Amino acid sequence: MQLKTKIDAEDGRQELRISRKFELPLELLFKAYTEPEILEQWMGTKVLKLENEKYGSWQFETTDPRGNKHRFSGVIHEFVPDRQIIRTFEMVGTGFGVQLEFLEFESITEETSRLDMHIVYRSAELRDQYLKIGMPRGLSMAHDRLQEAAEKYK
Amino acid sequence: MQLKTKIDAEDGRQELRISRKFELPLELLFKAYTEPEILEQWMGTKVLKLENEKYGSWQFETTDPRGNKHRFSGVIHEFVPDRQIIRTFEMVGTGFGVQLEFLEFESITEETSRLDMHIVYRSAELRDQYLKIGMPRGLSMAHDRLQEAAEKYK
Repeated sequence: MQLKTKIDAEDGRQELRISRKFELPLELLFKAYTEPEILEQWMGTKVLKLENEKYGSWQFETTDPRGNKHRFSGVIHEFVPDRQIIRTFEMVGTGFGVQLEFLEFESITEETSRLDMHIVYRSAELRDQYLKIGMPRGLSMAHDRLQEAAEKYK
Repeated sequence: MQLKTKIDAEDGRQELRISRKFELPLELLFKAYTEPEILEQWMGTKVLKLENEKYGSWQFETTDPRGNKHRFSGVIHEFVPDRQIIRTFEMVGTGFGVQLEFLEFESITEETSRLDMHIVYRSAELRDQYLKIGMPRGLSMAHDRLQEAAEKYK
C-alpha cells in the first residue's frame, strides 16, 4: 500500500523532504501540531512541555509496550502561527543526534491543507538510520491518525 | 597567509567542519564563547541576550561602519560546560537561513585547547554563500582576536 505521506530521500544526502496533504483546514492542521490535546492523540505521546513561541522549547514522552519511557525534546527557533515552525528535534539518550526541522503549513482550499517538512541531519548516516527503523511508514501512519483525530475538532 | 582556523568544505555538501587550536586553557576558551564581556571583544558585537543553558536563547547585535544594525540570534539545544554547545544560528533578516551548530571544546594540554565546529546548513547553496562572503577568513580573524582578548583573563 502506498504511503500518503511522501518522503523524498536523495541518496547520500543529510536531509529529508516530507510532504502530506490533509483533508483539514489550515488552522486545524496547525492546531494538530501545537495543541497538546490533539497532539497527544495522534502522536501517542505525552506532552510534558510545549512552548509555542520563538525561543520556546518542547518535551514529549512516550511509554513503549514494555513500559520503558522515551523522551523527545528540542527548542523552537521560529514560530509563525498557521505558517511555519523551525525547531530542533532529538530522541534523547539514543545515538540519533540532533536534527533541525523546518515545518511549513499551507492552505490549499478552505477544507484542505499541506504540511511540508524539511529535516536536516548531522550526517547522511544518521538520516539513513531513521529510514532503516521505519520512519517513513511510522510518520505516514501517525499522519493518518492526525487526520482522524483532528476531524473531531472541525 | 595561511588561516589558523581550518575549514573543511567538501564540495556539494550542506555542512562545514571547522577546527582551531588556541593557546588557552580549555576553561578560558569556553568562557570566551559564553561570557559576554570576552565575547563582545572578539566578536565585535553587542550581547543582547545569552542564556548559557539548555533551552536558552541568545541574541547579538553588531553595528556596521555605516551605522546599520545587524541582528544574530538562535536557541541553545544543548549546553555542557567546558565541553559542548549545540545551537541554532541565524543572521536575522538576511536570506542566509537558519543553521544548526555543534561546538565541541577539548583540552589538549593545560595551556592549549581546541574548538571543533560542525555547522549544518539548510542547503549546500546557503553554505556556499557563506564561503563566498568570506566567512573562512572572517572567522579565522575573529579567532585571532579571541586568542588575544582571552589572554588578558589568564
